[in-house]
Amino acid sequence: MKFDIKVKFYNEEPSFGKGVAELMRHCQKLGSLSKAYKAMGMSNSKAWKILKRAEEDLGFELVNRSIGGNNGGGSTLTEQGEQLLKKYDLYMQRLEEYSQSLFEEIFDE
Amino acid sequence: MKFDIKVKFYNEEPSFGKGVAELMRHCQKLGSLSKAYKAMGMSNSKAWKILKRAEEDLGFELVNRSIGGNNGGGSTLTEQGEQLLKKYDLYMQRLEEYSQSLFEEIFDE
Repeated sequence: MKFDIKVKFYNEEPSFGKGVAELMRHCQKLGSLSKAYKAMGMSNSKAWKILKRAEEDLGFELVNRSIGGNNGGGSTLTEQGEQLLKKYDLYMQRLEEYSQSLFEEIFDE
Repeated sequence: MKFDIKVKFYNEEPSFGKGVAELMRHCQKLGSLSKAYKAMGMSNSKAWKILKRAEEDLGFELVNRSIGGNNGGGSTLTEQGEQLLKKYDLYMQRLEEYSQSLFEEIFDE
């Protein structure tokens, strides 16, 4: 037997989870939101949808949109976005460690 | 900010989670699967679908189906079903405690 844990953070409606976090992580690394969703094999519309939904629900911007420029513009994480991603990663890492050892303790006979 | 955790247990495809566990808990209390899904406001077809999917994926029966009888028959949990539900409840209780204190530690400033 295996287990799977999904965590969403939110104010009103579950909005910030694995998908948005991965999108932001790619964006941080690649410097562009379009490079980020392409690298993930995610559609343009899906990427914008989950990002906007999270930003609207959380009440702050996660990604800075810069328009134009010589290289077509790039996207970076906002200060608040960066902080949230850091906390999310820490939370998930600790939760995964705990849930795995709990699983072994309770389910392994 | 709040958070929401969803856990599924499974072999091949996430199949056993909150819904099936609640259905089983009601069935244990009420002695009948039909009373159980009615008490939960769940449809007959949904209840059977999630129960069968979990049983097929896990490879054992969770609920004994008795047919007929003076009171139309009842349903009880199988021994394996009872064991699984007990472990699930323990796992979820401990995970909820941990995830809540972790949330306060990491997200509360």
